[in-house]
Amino acid sequence: MTGKFIITIDLGGTNLKLALLDLRFHILSKEVLSTQAFKKPASLIGAIADSIDNFIQTHDLSKKNILGVGLGLPGPIDVKKGLVHYFPNIPGWKDVGLKAILEKRTGLKVYLDNDANLMSLGEFRLGAARGAVNAICLTLGTGVGSGVIINRKLFRAETFAAGEAGHIPINESGPRCNCGGNACLEVYIGNHRIEAEARKVFRRNISLEELSSLAKAKNQKAIKIWLKVGRRLGVALVGMVNLLSPECVVIGGGVANAGKILFDEVRKTVYRQAMPIQAKHLSILKAELGSDAGLIGAGILVKEKGLV
Amino acid sequence: MTGKFIITIDLGGTNLKLALLDLRFHILSKEVLSTQAFKKPASLIGAIADSIDNFIQTHDLSKKNILGVGLGLPGPIDVKKGLVHYFPNIPGWKDVGLKAILEKRTGLKVYLDNDANLMSLGEFRLGAARGAVNAICLTLGTGVGSGVIINRKLFRAETFAAGEAGHIPINESGPRCNCGGNACLEVYIGNHRIEAEARKVFRRNISLEELSSLAKAKNQKAIKIWLKVGRRLGVALVGMVNLLSPECVVIGGGVANAGKILFDEVRKTVYRQAMPIQAKHLSILKAELGSDAGLIGAGILVKEKGLV
Repeated sequence: MTGKFIITIDLGGTNLKLALLDLRFHILSKEVLSTQAFKKPASLIGAIADSIDNFIQTHDLSKKNILGVGLGLPGPIDVKKGLVHYFPNIPGWKDVGLKAILEKRTGLKVYLDNDANLMSLGEFRLGAARGAVNAICLTLGTGVGSGVIINRKLFRAETFAAGEAGHIPINESGPRCNCGGNACLEVYIGNHRIEAEARKVFRRNISLEELSSLAKAKNQKAIKIWLKVGRRLGVALVGMVNLLSPECVVIGGGVANAGKILFDEVRKTVYRQAMPIQAKHLSILKAELGSDAGLIGAGILVKEKGLV
Repeated sequence: MTGKFIITIDLGGTNLKLALLDLRFHILSKEVLSTQAFKKPASLIGAIADSIDNFIQTHDLSKKNILGVGLGLPGPIDVKKGLVHYFPNIPGWKDVGLKAILEKRTGLKVYLDNDANLMSLGEFRLGAARGAVNAICLTLGTGVGSGVIINRKLFRAETFAAGEAGHIPINESGPRCNCGGNACLEVYIGNHRIEAEARKVFRRNISLEELSSLAKAKNQKAIKIWLKVGRRLGVALVGMVNLLSPECVVIGGGVANAGKILFDEVRKTVYRQAMPIQAKHLSILKAELGSDAGLIGAGILVKEKGLV
């Protein structure tokens, strides 16, 4: 192939997704690799660098075709220094200068950001939040990731740590969260928590997909579980909406596939409880880019040299 | 007097404060008028216009000495159009074009904003939050007012309604709030709620001042009430800090006069429960400008022609 391309990577606790994008952020090719074998930072970094090299070769490209590499990472990042502070779910990382290491290993320009930030950037520029001035994007999975768009830019704050909507407490006291807090939204609606609740109610293992199907088939127990998820997410959103008055809240991630029953309850809660002006100017929308949002957002990060 | 001055007004449910400021925002003179006699918008607007005229005369000034008039108002404002949407605690106001009316009546340039926004602006530019890039300012009184500073500017959002930290729910369910929501921070720590709690515990009427004195004298019941206030405020702040990662939270207003016992518990809660990076870069400070913060903020609004 000829021309310029961007490589983006979405690193999760269990696998690594690679994508080749053109400069208009179309995904031309994707690959998924398991990362569970790479326990230590050095071996995981080696695997990332190797996968970039292989990916370039597989696509008959050379490094001069690559504008840069954008990585979405599951933890807090110092975007300016290209530093991984730590990963909540991958042990061993502490202030690792991943950008410098990968640039040296690959000879390519590398940009890092938090995965939820990049998903939000994707949805804001090319997905459900496009056109908004202020927006909050949530991705509901094992954790509740999120990003905040303020005045048409990703808001990271001086710490680059802003945007952690999953760690807003929705009760004065409640279950302990991995983050060190209590009663965070995430401890109530993370996918394992919903599955645990379903297991208790149905007295067997039950997937989120099945729980959604059951709710669609009017199973009252399943409906009740989803309504509770929607209400809790709604309560957290009421606080965010009253504080930031975004025009747009975008909700994606696996848990959001529950669809109408979940969205109806979120909307009901927010429109009933949020302040009148804030509620009047707000749309609550399903994410449009699916699991590609982060890969696309990482492409935007590369093209704009991290200045998003 | 000669030279240019700014008149600022802080309108509350019970009284109206007027101040004369120089262009460096020093308060040269202040006056307090009762507004309880003026039930209808028209008569209250007349009283505001008259008080501006009288204030100019009293100070031996003429209108050409006045750069403009800045008003801090107890409700949501359309800052661009100069419109009062409504006042939660003063009935009868609905989308009143107060800026245009007052400009016509007085012949002076008039700028409006929400009172908590102006208090925050004052604390940000000249008070406890100066130097911060991102900050949250709270004023604890009958209500919990607040303003959000993002990237060194007052953040109002497209609706001009952003910044309502007092209406972040701190429980999934709880007492109904005047705003239409449930379990808002304000319904737990508004001053009347604290007084009601104290009345229940002590079986007599007890002022916040006395409740503070009792706590300082190691009265365990009083201490317990203040710890609860601090913990609840702390929980709401944990959510805001995780979401926005400000360098600075400023707390003022009458309730904040409880002082050390309150601040210690707020800090303990936030530093224990907020996420590590957010907590590490955060200071929680007492407001410095006292009840003048709003009058000073209104002066900044006038001097910068509302473009703050």
